[in-house]
Amino acid sequence: MATSSSTEKLPRVLIVKRPDAMAVLGDGFVASTKFEILKAFESPLPLPEFLAYHSDSISAIIAPVAAPVTADLIRILPNLRLVVTTSAGVDHVDLVECRRRGISVANAGSSFSEDVADTAVGLLIDVFRRISAANRFVKQRFWPLKGDYPLGSKLGRKRIGIVGLGSIGSKVATRLDAFGCQISYSSRNRKPYDVPYHYYMDIEEMAANSDALIICCELNEKTLRLINKDVLSALGKRGVIVNVARGAIIDEEEMVRCLREGEIGGAGLDVFEDEPNVPKELFELDNVVFSPHSAFMTLEGLEELGKVVVGNIEAFFSNKPLLTPVL
Amino acid sequence: MATSSSTEKLPRVLIVKRPDAMAVLGDGFVASTKFEILKAFESPLPLPEFLAYHSDSISAIIAPVAAPVTADLIRILPNLRLVVTTSAGVDHVDLVECRRRGISVANAGSSFSEDVADTAVGLLIDVFRRISAANRFVKQRFWPLKGDYPLGSKLGRKRIGIVGLGSIGSKVATRLDAFGCQISYSSRNRKPYDVPYHYYMDIEEMAANSDALIICCELNEKTLRLINKDVLSALGKRGVIVNVARGAIIDEEEMVRCLREGEIGGAGLDVFEDEPNVPKELFELDNVVFSPHSAFMTLEGLEELGKVVVGNIEAFFSNKPLLTPVL
Repeated sequence: MATSSSTEKLPRVLIVKRPDAMAVLGDGFVASTKFEILKAFESPLPLPEFLAYHSDSISAIIAPVAAPVTADLIRILPNLRLVVTTSAGVDHVDLVECRRRGISVANAGSSFSEDVADTAVGLLIDVFRRISAANRFVKQRFWPLKGDYPLGSKLGRKRIGIVGLGSIGSKVATRLDAFGCQISYSSRNRKPYDVPYHYYMDIEEMAANSDALIICCELNEKTLRLINKDVLSALGKRGVIVNVARGAIIDEEEMVRCLREGEIGGAGLDVFEDEPNVPKELFELDNVVFSPHSAFMTLEGLEELGKVVVGNIEAFFSNKPLLTPVL
Repeated sequence: MATSSSTEKLPRVLIVKRPDAMAVLGDGFVASTKFEILKAFESPLPLPEFLAYHSDSISAIIAPVAAPVTADLIRILPNLRLVVTTSAGVDHVDLVECRRRGISVANAGSSFSEDVADTAVGLLIDVFRRISAANRFVKQRFWPLKGDYPLGSKLGRKRIGIVGLGSIGSKVATRLDAFGCQISYSSRNRKPYDVPYHYYMDIEEMAANSDALIICCELNEKTLRLINKDVLSALGKRGVIVNVARGAIIDEEEMVRCLREGEIGGAGLDVFEDEPNVPKELFELDNVVFSPHSAFMTLEGLEELGKVVVGNIEAFFSNKPLLTPVL
């Protein structure tokens, strides 16, 4: 029948693990009349059998961070032509294998940048001004004055070092500029001369001259454990770390030790090395604030993400340019 | 003896209750060689007896919000000539009685404005982006996915109504402008034409056209319970209230009802009608964040406050103009 046969011709798009956005928005997150979604996570079949059964028909993948697109996965999908991530970062996709196979890759573009930048600033204010700590202080009925008063530190004139002045980092800079902070940055290359912030080639030198570091760069070979013992030590006892990028950019074990022993001043952490595992030994510390890799999560941002994912897939299968191409 | 007699001539400055700043910084908070501090709160005498014993010698008062300067207090201090508050607001000082008696009044000036504005923005981000809720979610080990996911709402393009565009309100506006918010304000008078924000004469109309109200005005007869049932109702189910001014500017009982019944969307509250009593029926709500009237409290801000208080007292007794005169 006509309807059935036209349905059969729709490109099939694999989703291995449910993206957070789909948990929140439901299937409407990536609804389209131009492709068909294959949800491995809803199948009673174990994943290898599910993939073996459907492998020939799959021509695209929607890939949340929690479901890496490895060389092994790519190898068993002979007709895979497109990977679209639900994140800005693509470190969970084997780009070498995609390039070798001629598979196109698109990411979430900058649709999250504003929300991630807002969270970075929110976490920074929370740590410096002790918003969460003050909230607990009131709810524990310590007001007036029992226990340690949650005295904060002034945001104005703080020296903020932004690691990675891309789409997110530059929005963090604009925001913190309005608070009277002094902004510096480090990145692969110095930005054009109309960027008014001080550039550090050496991240350890930036840490030594900063009251807080905000990690906004992508995770790659060069940024893996970039924030190591030496950088943390240069940041010092009053220094604050905010990470809205990827957990593995920081040597997490070393950061945990520094926080527990008071060698750095505090942290606002949205991302972790082994998510969703969080270093629970930090839970008791008043100067550490956590969020569950949700810096990008707003209702408006997820709706926008859905449009970008659907737009990329529809464009690809209509032989139009990707909206937010990576490869 | 010379030393003793010169000490006896120093002006005596009464402090009835220990200011928070003194709890944090110690006596160094208002140390001076030009006046002597009389700490009623450290005396074993009950306050009336302490005052009766010292009344003739007291020529100034340092007045935190928690220790009102009433007409009764003023009446028993015949030589009182100066009141210096440790707050920007002077609603806890009987200005009518001060004026009648020719007593000068100084406040904390705008030394707190930046810190209070920072807290207002921090509370707003916390409520919209659910920073505290996300922190609890992680610490309760709900990640991955147990309970309600703390999904936030995007800050950008939110319509923010600032109630009172003075020293604090205008700093809140500058900061939120950098987040891409749309700023409006209400105040006694429309500001000069170079203020780029939309002016509402009617606060209920502003509430109806805002996603959040931030209360930054002073408490006086006109602003008492200004945020009443009608204004809260106009703000609506998704609307957020942030209050860094004075508790009594909001009809607190009505606000508590609206929050409990979901008639407004959330609140960030630094101040309350009957401090330090906090409406504990809000403690269970995930969308309400408290701080203990600490919006102004930073180490740097308290040190600056000490300089302003000491500077006012020293100036007054040297017959120089007050630094931050109110009366």
